[in-house]
Amino acid sequence: MATKTLDGLFYDTLKDIYFAEKKILSTLPKMAKAANDDRLREAFEEHREQTQGHVDRLDKIFAMIGKKPQGKTCAAIMGITEEGAEIIEEYGDSPALDAGLLAAAQAVEHYEISRYGTLRTWAEELGLDGAVSLLQTTLDEEKETDRTLTRIAEDVVNPKAEAA
Amino acid sequence: MATKTLDGLFYDTLKDIYFAEKKILSTLPKMAKAANDDRLREAFEEHREQTQGHVDRLDKIFAMIGKKPQGKTCAAIMGITEEGAEIIEEYGDSPALDAGLLAAAQAVEHYEISRYGTLRTWAEELGLDGAVSLLQTTLDEEKETDRTLTRIAEDVVNPKAEAA
Repeated sequence: MATKTLDGLFYDTLKDIYFAEKKILSTLPKMAKAANDDRLREAFEEHREQTQGHVDRLDKIFAMIGKKPQGKTCAAIMGITEEGAEIIEEYGDSPALDAGLLAAAQAVEHYEISRYGTLRTWAEELGLDGAVSLLQTTLDEEKETDRTLTRIAEDVVNPKAEAA
Repeated sequence: MATKTLDGLFYDTLKDIYFAEKKILSTLPKMAKAANDDRLREAFEEHREQTQGHVDRLDKIFAMIGKKPQGKTCAAIMGITEEGAEIIEEYGDSPALDAGLLAAAQAVEHYEISRYGTLRTWAEELGLDGAVSLLQTTLDEEKETDRTLTRIAEDVVNPKAEAA
């Protein structure tokens, strides 16, 4: 087997984030259902729609490098979403639940921000110009979602959790 | 048992990041040892020193809330560092190894950025002023480390991986 180089790493990491996005697609409805705050629930529902778009972009990038879209188990997202499930279990009847859901969602966003930032830089190095712009678009959306979650955390959820 | 509120969530998340920082302390020397690029190895070594400082700040925050410092298994950091270990295993003899190590390290940084951002916001809500400034200092250092890693990724490592 030839030594793996940057194109192999790009392909492996594409499979990693593909798995992660699919996992997030199945997790967001549970988080939306658990959320007490309307604005938070809507944010989770909107982000689920957006996440489907991220999967579609990844499908296009797989096609660009001549590969069939496939996921590869991503231990990181499994761990991050496991922590979110623990929050729902432990804080399900607590006024601090929404604060915990926000924290879990922001951990997910930051994982994605790191992965998409890395993939975009590698796509530039590999001269995959079409992939660069698709990855940048998703990266911008993940960052915007993270900012939205921060605003909700500061404006809406934390005062409730504290006042309880 | 009383319903858990924001102070309980703050304490639980403090234990989560305490566990994560200890895990990172034991992981960074392995990443430094594996790195081929001098600048990357030095970045990992410097960040290990810094991480010890983050643990010391967490010790102080535990004291501020009248608790003994202790960790709680953090599934997220276990998953994230597992992916880093896989990179070393699969790309150990590849010119793309350093690019993979950088990606793994940036996933770690982003997990910490999300956690410290959350903890700082909660400390504000809870009126823990001393904790706010300690958490903000660590948050700033994590963000600076992430920027340093991005610069190394763009300047040094990726062209090597591609040229191989």
